[in-house]
Amino acid sequence: MVDDTLLESGNQKIEWARNHMPVLSIIRDGFASEKPLKGCRIAMALHVEAKTAVLVETLASGGAEIAITGCNPLSTQDDVAAALDTRDNVSCYAKNDVSKDEYYEAIDRVLDIEPNIIVDDGADIIHKIHTERQNLLPNVIGGCEETTTGVHRLMSMSENNALKIPTIAVNDALTKFLFDNRYGTGQSTWDAINRTTNLLVAGKDVVVAGYGWCGKGVAMYAAGLGANVIVTEVNPVRALEARMDGYRVMTMDEAAELGDIFVTTTGNVSVLTRDHFKLMKDGVILANSGHFNVEMNLEELESMAHSIRKVKSNIKEYNLKTHRINVIADQQTVNLAAGDGHPAEVMDMSFSNQALCVRHLVDNDLDIDVHAVPPEIDTYIAELKLKVLGIEIDELTTEQEKYMREWEHGT
Amino acid sequence: MVDDTLLESGNQKIEWARNHMPVLSIIRDGFASEKPLKGCRIAMALHVEAKTAVLVETLASGGAEIAITGCNPLSTQDDVAAALDTRDNVSCYAKNDVSKDEYYEAIDRVLDIEPNIIVDDGADIIHKIHTERQNLLPNVIGGCEETTTGVHRLMSMSENNALKIPTIAVNDALTKFLFDNRYGTGQSTWDAINRTTNLLVAGKDVVVAGYGWCGKGVAMYAAGLGANVIVTEVNPVRALEARMDGYRVMTMDEAAELGDIFVTTTGNVSVLTRDHFKLMKDGVILANSGHFNVEMNLEELESMAHSIRKVKSNIKEYNLKTHRINVIADQQTVNLAAGDGHPAEVMDMSFSNQALCVRHLVDNDLDIDVHAVPPEIDTYIAELKLKVLGIEIDELTTEQEKYMREWEHGT
Amino acid sequence: MVDDTLLESGNQKIEWARNHMPVLSIIRDGFASEKPLKGCRIAMALHVEAKTAVLVETLASGGAEIAITGCNPLSTQDDVAAALDTRDNVSCYAKNDVSKDEYYEAIDRVLDIEPNIIVDDGADIIHKIHTERQNLLPNVIGGCEETTTGVHRLMSMSENNALKIPTIAVNDALTKFLFDNRYGTGQSTWDAINRTTNLLVAGKDVVVAGYGWCGKGVAMYAAGLGANVIVTEVNPVRALEARMDGYRVMTMDEAAELGDIFVTTTGNVSVLTRDHFKLMKDGVILANSGHFNVEMNLEELESMAHSIRKVKSNIKEYNLKTHRINVIADQQTVNLAAGDGHPAEVMDMSFSNQALCVRHLVDNDLDIDVHAVPPEIDTYIAELKLKVLGIEIDELTTEQEKYMREWEHGT
Amino acid sequence: MVDDTLLESGNQKIEWARNHMPVLSIIRDGFASEKPLKGCRIAMALHVEAKTAVLVETLASGGAEIAITGCNPLSTQDDVAAALDTRDNVSCYAKNDVSKDEYYEAIDRVLDIEPNIIVDDGADIIHKIHTERQNLLPNVIGGCEETTTGVHRLMSMSENNALKIPTIAVNDALTKFLFDNRYGTGQSTWDAINRTTNLLVAGKDVVVAGYGWCGKGVAMYAAGLGANVIVTEVNPVRALEARMDGYRVMTMDEAAELGDIFVTTTGNVSVLTRDHFKLMKDGVILANSGHFNVEMNLEELESMAHSIRKVKSNIKEYNLKTHRINVIADQQTVNLAAGDGHPAEVMDMSFSNQALCVRHLVDNDLDIDVHAVPPEIDTYIAELKLKVLGIEIDELTTEQEKYMREWEHGT
Repeated sequence: MVDDTLLESGNQKIEWARNHMPVLSIIRDGFASEKPLKGCRIAMALHVEAKTAVLVETLASGGAEIAITGCNPLSTQDDVAAALDTRDNVSCYAKNDVSKDEYYEAIDRVLDIEPNIIVDDGADIIHKIHTERQNLLPNVIGGCEETTTGVHRLMSMSENNALKIPTIAVNDALTKFLFDNRYGTGQSTWDAINRTTNLLVAGKDVVVAGYGWCGKGVAMYAAGLGANVIVTEVNPVRALEARMDGYRVMTMDEAAELGDIFVTTTGNVSVLTRDHFKLMKDGVILANSGHFNVEMNLEELESMAHSIRKVKSNIKEYNLKTHRINVIADQQTVNLAAGDGHPAEVMDMSFSNQALCVRHLVDNDLDIDVHAVPPEIDTYIAELKLKVLGIEIDELTTEQEKYMREWEHGT
Repeated sequence: MVDDTLLESGNQKIEWARNHMPVLSIIRDGFASEKPLKGCRIAMALHVEAKTAVLVETLASGGAEIAITGCNPLSTQDDVAAALDTRDNVSCYAKNDVSKDEYYEAIDRVLDIEPNIIVDDGADIIHKIHTERQNLLPNVIGGCEETTTGVHRLMSMSENNALKIPTIAVNDALTKFLFDNRYGTGQSTWDAINRTTNLLVAGKDVVVAGYGWCGKGVAMYAAGLGANVIVTEVNPVRALEARMDGYRVMTMDEAAELGDIFVTTTGNVSVLTRDHFKLMKDGVILANSGHFNVEMNLEELESMAHSIRKVKSNIKEYNLKTHRINVIADQQTVNLAAGDGHPAEVMDMSFSNQALCVRHLVDNDLDIDVHAVPPEIDTYIAELKLKVLGIEIDELTTEQEKYMREWEHGT
Repeated sequence: MVDDTLLESGNQKIEWARNHMPVLSIIRDGFASEKPLKGCRIAMALHVEAKTAVLVETLASGGAEIAITGCNPLSTQDDVAAALDTRDNVSCYAKNDVSKDEYYEAIDRVLDIEPNIIVDDGADIIHKIHTERQNLLPNVIGGCEETTTGVHRLMSMSENNALKIPTIAVNDALTKFLFDNRYGTGQSTWDAINRTTNLLVAGKDVVVAGYGWCGKGVAMYAAGLGANVIVTEVNPVRALEARMDGYRVMTMDEAAELGDIFVTTTGNVSVLTRDHFKLMKDGVILANSGHFNVEMNLEELESMAHSIRKVKSNIKEYNLKTHRINVIADQQTVNLAAGDGHPAEVMDMSFSNQALCVRHLVDNDLDIDVHAVPPEIDTYIAELKLKVLGIEIDELTTEQEKYMREWEHGT
Repeated sequence: MVDDTLLESGNQKIEWARNHMPVLSIIRDGFASEKPLKGCRIAMALHVEAKTAVLVETLASGGAEIAITGCNPLSTQDDVAAALDTRDNVSCYAKNDVSKDEYYEAIDRVLDIEPNIIVDDGADIIHKIHTERQNLLPNVIGGCEETTTGVHRLMSMSENNALKIPTIAVNDALTKFLFDNRYGTGQSTWDAINRTTNLLVAGKDVVVAGYGWCGKGVAMYAAGLGANVIVTEVNPVRALEARMDGYRVMTMDEAAELGDIFVTTTGNVSVLTRDHFKLMKDGVILANSGHFNVEMNLEELESMAHSIRKVKSNIKEYNLKTHRINVIADQQTVNLAAGDGHPAEVMDMSFSNQALCVRHLVDNDLDIDVHAVPPEIDTYIAELKLKVLGIEIDELTTEQEKYMREWEHGT
């Protein structure tokens, strides 16, 4: 029995998102008239909130049948999930605050659709279909992966010859990672931290672990909020870049003593451990903005804690006697678990890539490999986005095109 | 009958705030041992949320009896109000979402305490005691005013010889307006807008009306979020300053056509009117960060609207047929009506000024006038704040002090 | 015998400056037709470079007779001085790279004009006329002072009852210090340091001593160049402000070990001493952007040095065996001694204040005191500047003016 | 006959640069002991100024014999050229302010060394050896190209099957373009414009043509100087990025009317033409920061001009009757023709890539193609740079390395 208030709230959120995703709307209009996904069954695991619902609507309007679940135990918005489930040809199995077992159980339900296409965020469906549900592989035309971490997993599978289906690294489209990972993660991470803590960022030392595109965004927005930013990295080029961008760069051992707020964006495991927790100042705030909840070793933190209690909605305090450490949302991706995820306009580009890549998989017969998003899709989305923003740009003149082709013209 | 969940939530918020207001805590410890406000009755109208509760606790610990209500119909947090009301010697009359009548009715209840001291935010209590409740004036030692708008009202009263009690312009302390109005309003205004809209600020044209300290903060944080900022002003020096800070400056008639988000911070009336609404783009967002809900002429907007509906929590859409205009929180002060107000650390300084100014009123016999915060209070708070931040600064050497006194030393 | 090349170069610079000082040009046109300074003799000590020449032309066009010299031994541009000396009713005694004796000798020459008006920058003329040349005091109508340091000296004189003439603190006009001291000093200080050192600022720790308006500017532009900025202060409110602006704040003892570039802007003496020089890193760069060359104790540095040599135009290296310290322009005000001083557009406002304040002194009979620039002059200059920038701003409506006067209107 | 003053000045500049290029110094020490370039003849065309001299010294210390000339008619510093020519095994043919014929004549002289290795900046030597001097091709082991424009020419040659030697795109090393093109071009372009114009950037509309790495740098530093930045682009993804970075984006037709300062960084021809000159405001400043002096169509500008005159050192004014247009350094690369080129620390990385790539060519037998800089060179330089900066970074733990290799680990 569906709750009407929940439905109303979910539908309201979806409508708001849809109104702020004009590129995806143009693509949906095309899908609705051409039906390029007719007969196609799609299994999806994404953060089930309003922007994702607009992608699902788009794929459904192209003729597909869809089963969807969440890609994170804490990121589902139940009102949106309820509303999505009422759509034609869409089954939604996502629920907020599920156990690990329930999480994977839902992925199994989604796989029961016997998909031709997989749309994944973190590669949990793709992983399952390559292990426990291999019998489903023959139906699969291909998969699209949304995020850096998932692409990284696919690359590892490919290197280990474990990959059995064509995939597209949607994350690596320019119109995805340059915008979504940087401005999207940047704004929404701080939106989540600010609304959860109600603390002033100005005048604080903020430690950002990782200076990839997400880390760059988190650092840039932290500076915009008046923080003094410290970056930790394992990659020397990125470390130099962070330094030239005006930040302090050091090891986490050094940073642990200095930070007031720590944000992890590395995509790696155990970036914050016992050795760091021990050194931290009283009252520090820890948040993870990477895909998986593994960047802080919370088992170690728990074992060090004298007591643990909830001190505010979404904040758990670990009392180490000498000092207290506050963890937001149990280190689940903070912008989703303690916020509403990326801003709509950024997902407009990311999910336009998803929609067009799903179609690209259907229209073409790709090799088993991790493929780049075709450049013409990237450019098309950038052009549409400029158009909906009302921005006109220059075109190369004939003289300029000729000049660019030539090598004769020198000093 | 008090709801336990409400109490728990309120107490949790207050504890969190208290832990992040270390300067006020030091002052409270002093008050608790000296009881400088013993026998004093204080009538207060402030935004009733967690930081305010910590101020109330501080004044109560100094020996005062307190009656408090809200200073804005939409800014009260009911859980905090409930928790506050359970404190010894504190009566809280604030409720969220009250009518204008209920709002002023609560001010009357607060005045029934027959106050010696008034702590006001917007000068609504002080106004009432000078008009309908003049009989209470003889008891009053003085009043403290929190905000630019309220100070402006007191100044007008003073110029019109209408002021009958000594008052202190707490807003005008350096440790108040330089921090609270700029970083506090800046961060919390965008926290509120972002959590309410879930839209990307980067790539948008943001129009900030007014370039006082609040406007400076709102513009600075907008730029930090990647906005292209347009400032409107009536003061030529401020207009020039905005231009030199890298923003575009123009009349609102010009800006109305360009903006994607409008934030008003002028403290004045009808900054956005029919003429501007008419010119705006489809889907613009309007928010007020000034004290009173008068900066946009919403009566005119209503009269122009074909239909009005709620499109998202805290957002009302006015459909003008040609285009739609979204207003956040009915133009109530956005960081409070759609957020949690200023960050705790900023209120730590603002409310330390309040606490010490209340004591200053009690300890001294001030003239009937609008007084500045004594510089020694300002400096003391700045010194304490540096101390709790762990920052040490230089002191003038004897040689330097001598040099500063001299006029003989030239080229 | 005047060198033609020198004259041509000087006149070229003056013309360029004049073309970029449109507000002063409007004032000059008014002066030329009204001749408000007819019969007036003006003694001036300013940095003699192109922008100053345009002020001199303006005063001369108003009917004054002028004698001018430099206000710093190293800031005079000889080509401009030569060109200026050819103007009708102008005698220029300034020369670059003069000894202290020559410097004061030139001030004496300027005083020989028996001035009615003094225009000073650092108060060296005013000092001399109050000490060695007191016989000239009876002729003097008043003086204008350009800079924070000079105003500070006048205030000390006034407090010590030593001041004998009316003076105007031109520095304290909003259209002066908010722009000249911040953007002017900020840009030109880094212009000078960059052109002198050809080093990368990004990735460096820059220590700014003092966070007044000049220090704020120097810090802001350093951050804009990618530096990680450390601020030292003696004033707790300013120290807090620097911290909230995202900088690190500490004592100079701590900063001495960390900085790559040090810029002093305190207006005080011995901000960098033996104790700091000792701690510095090898190869640090020191520059002074305060008015007088006293902020670093170079005597102490010399006494510590094993050897001293010029390593690049305008850079002297002090070799302390353990490490080397580079000082730019012998700590003379760096933007003038190693650059071309403030940008023209900023001096347009500063010198418009000078021109109108000179006239104000002539037109009015002021008390012996340090007077503020009349607000109407400030506003007039801001309005003219907006006009020449092509910027239109809003005006208060009748409704708004009424609202601002009222105190009745509350929630 | 060599001028001693010239030599002294040149040597002083080289020493200063050398002291600020610690990574290259480490490489030189290695070269000096190993002599990896023994017997190698190198033809070079680079901007002959101090940093380049340090590269030449490094290659010479590795055992090479070197002939060098400039790569731009206006960028040579004659004192450095003179000093360089006195070095053992180095012949310098560069002179400042040469005609096109003299420029190519010097390239011929350099080629007379019958080079094994070419180090080029803009590909003028490589072009000549593929056209007029093809007889020299058999001796050539390979070439290194410094800049985006030159790499672009090599790519065109390769696509047209015109390339006959192995080349390395030094420009495309991460430790080159991420730093040199962005921070180097950014800082030095504005250093040059500011020292040449002495105008205030704050409050101006600055138009940056092109948003590649150089354009990103020029825009970022312009914003740091308080400009309001407008970007023009032909690439939609870059255009979007500029917009999200907070800038206005539009066509040059629109920008032409708005800009106060224009900086071209496109690497293309005729970005500013008659149509734009016509629309510009009176007194605009034009500067080119791209490699070749072709980005503005100055022939068209000349033909439109009523008169042309030098108004300041390095500035030519074109008077179009209706308005005046100021061009800096005849649109030669502004940071070199009107400044001292990139800061030393940035060239430390760029030229370390050159030195190690020259060695890489000698040590390996590469195919005829445009090769990337080997990643191990890139990483090695980044690691050395961090080391000389005193920055330590984290290393992957065993647990983390394992995690990064795995694909099993999911939610």
